Amino acid sequence: MHNIIIAQSGGPTSVINGSLYGIIKAARKSNQCDKIFGSRFGINGIIKEDFIDFKDLDIELLKNTPSAYLGSARTKLSDDFQDELYQKVLYTFKKHQITDLFFIGGNDSMDSCMKLDKFFKSINYPVNVIGVPKTIDNDLCFMDHTPGYASAAKFIIKSLIDIYYDTHVYDVGRVTIVEAMGRDAGWLAAAPKLLELVGIKVDLIYLPEVKFNQDKFIQDVERIYKQNKKVLVVISEGLRDLNDNYVLNSRLFNTSDDFGNLQLGGLSFYLAEIINKNLNVPVRAIELNLLQRCFMDEASLTDLKEAIKCGEKALKLAFNGNSGFMVTMERISNDPYKIKYGKIKLNKVSSKIKYFPKEWIINDNQISDEFITYLKPLIQGDIKIKKENSLPIYQK
Amino acid sequence: MHNIIIAQSGGPTSVINGSLYGIIKAARKSNQCDKIFGSRFGINGIIKEDFIDFKDLDIELLKNTPSAYLGSARTKLSDDFQDELYQKVLYTFKKHQITDLFFIGGNDSMDSCMKLDKFFKSINYPVNVIGVPKTIDNDLCFMDHTPGYASAAKFIIKSLIDIYYDTHVYDVGRVTIVEAMGRDAGWLAAAPKLLELVGIKVDLIYLPEVKFNQDKFIQDVERIYKQNKKVLVVISEGLRDLNDNYVLNSRLFNTSDDFGNLQLGGLSFYLAEIINKNLNVPVRAIELNLLQRCFMDEASLTDLKEAIKCGEKALKLAFNGNSGFMVTMERISNDPYKIKYGKIKLNKVSSKIKYFPKEWIINDNQISDEFITYLKPLIQGDIKIKKENSLPIYQK
Repeated sequence: MHNIIIAQSGGPTSVINGSLYGIIKAARKSNQCDKIFGSRFGINGIIKEDFIDFKDLDIELLKNTPSAYLGSARTKLSDDFQDELYQKVLYTFKKHQITDLFFIGGNDSMDSCMKLDKFFKSINYPVNVIGVPKTIDNDLCFMDHTPGYASAAKFIIKSLIDIYYDTHVYDVGRVTIVEAMGRDAGWLAAAPKLLELVGIKVDLIYLPEVKFNQDKFIQDVERIYKQNKKVLVVISEGLRDLNDNYVLNSRLFNTSDDFGNLQLGGLSFYLAEIINKNLNVPVRAIELNLLQRCFMDEASLTDLKEAIKCGEKALKLAFNGNSGFMVTMERISNDPYKIKYGKIKLNKVSSKIKYFPKEWIINDNQISDEFITYLKPLIQGDIKIKKENSLPIYQK
Repeated sequence: MHNIIIAQSGGPTSVINGSLYGIIKAARKSNQCDKIFGSRFGINGIIKEDFIDFKDLDIELLKNTPSAYLGSARTKLSDDFQDELYQKVLYTFKKHQITDLFFIGGNDSMDSCMKLDKFFKSINYPVNVIGVPKTIDNDLCFMDHTPGYASAAKFIIKSLIDIYYDTHVYDVGRVTIVEAMGRDAGWLAAAPKLLELVGIKVDLIYLPEVKFNQDKFIQDVERIYKQNKKVLVVISEGLRDLNDNYVLNSRLFNTSDDFGNLQLGGLSFYLAEIINKNLNVPVRAIELNLLQRCFMDEASLTDLKEAIKCGEKALKLAFNGNSGFMVTMERISNDPYKIKYGKIKLNKVSSKIKYFPKEWIINDNQISDEFITYLKPLIQGDIKIKKENSLPIYQK
């Protein structure tokens, strides 16, 4: 019999609990599982023996519940296996006779996952360690896409459609700058390309993959403003300048700029101010913020189903004796859309970044149509959330 | 036979097109209507004879379409009826033999509506002028509530629930400051009180009705942070200090409209910086921004139905020979929830503000339970938007 433990790590996504749900469901179904533990707050729950016992818990609401149900952490594990943390982990695993460890996370979490696997192997302690991919950033290598990405992308697309309508309400000029998440890769900021499916064209899209040229940016906005009076710009929060520094590297709560103005908010506000000062035109900045990764009503059903499947696949891999792997998703067909679930060695994905393809970026601020083909199947379907008073009922 | 013209004015709401739909539907059904015009961009369409002809247009998608379909304006009309604008209006009305004018708008728009009514009466020109209430701010007098408010409130509540879950994902302290719209009145910022319906308590809520004491604010946040490590604060964008000035009156690149209204926003970032500087704790600012008034998926079905009814009532009032009135909504029963539609003289509502009741504010930063009873019926029901590729199909 197996005793399993599951941890969630890194920033949450709308479907990270889907993967947790998938592992638990598959574990129960296997009839090979005695204990099903959830570790609270990432690795910390393992160290502190702070568990949730899923053996008999009703989890039907879990897959539609936002944030990471178990709580999360951003702990970087030491390369030195003599580190006290590993001894604590081992103590817990021995005490509870844990046979399988699942880490649901992104590229940094896969680093932790890999180290734990190496540690157990180094002492010949039999544990199957499997990573389950998740990140809204879509920047895990060896993945067609990552669970969590499509739901965030869909929220951004839906928001942009409604914002587009709203910003056209007055017959006056306006530049609107919308800021999407994405520290290193532009997958989220590129998502509004799909507004073309409803007949709307975003004027300018800036991704971190292209060094941001501020003068060119001002010229581009000016040119379109003169033509159309309305300019819709989408930027990634992680834009870097020509010297490869973040355009806004002291994001919030820094004191004041050379002009004595308080620096308010994110990059969209910063760029809006630059546009206003240089072009003297009305401008509005919109930071989409946390809602991108937690707004459940806009989660993609396709995304949720895939997150669940990744959890199921992880359990299968572990119970078949695999360790040191992450679940992968390969698109074997686009029409009909079909995904094949596989595995990849953790050391090939940990701490690595899959960038937005250079060949899909046109003239530094446009996205090619291939990206529509890529993203469209992923956002299909809406999830059905249980409600009372038109408000959601989530897992407690 | 009647020839009617409809204008939309001021900031849009999620259901302002519902009222437009209601007027058109009722006009068609009356069989007393020859021409049904929409004036593009508020009063400007009347002046420029820039119309949409609704006579035979398929409008089934209209009521679920965000923003103001006709476009809007924030034009302040002169008190002097010799002003050229009135002559242009008269020219248009004579030329197209318009008998009825509908203005869908908030308190500033009701000022325009009132002036147009007075102008026509001053020259004994027979036009029925009726105002149709709308504003997300819920600050129109003689209204139990205004169409548009509940949908915005519901978006705020839904967002806050998901944000609450997200901000509890890490086992570390954090202050989260969420900014709701509301220039003068706190109706929107108070909405998260309804998180109590799902078992969540917002720690601090600050409305413009209470002069904002910054020192007290810092103390309140500090006290709760020491207790709970997590502090969830909701503020209104329109907070005023002890001297009755906006706490943040010089937003980046702000502009003001004809009525002298500043484009607000950004206060959450300003206050987040103050908290960070004074308490040295992690803090996050979230400005909910335009999505509050345009995010169609979270519109309240109750709100939409009422907006449509207000449009129908407006047509009935006009066709019964009334002029110089705004449609009103009176709650004649709360359980079961029931609204009676009536009328009020425009001069009683124009440019006046209905504030959040002082007696519902406890200790300057809490909301009383009466407000839950008030708001709960208004957010009931979700609207069903036609979709393709899981993206909305709106009226073109």
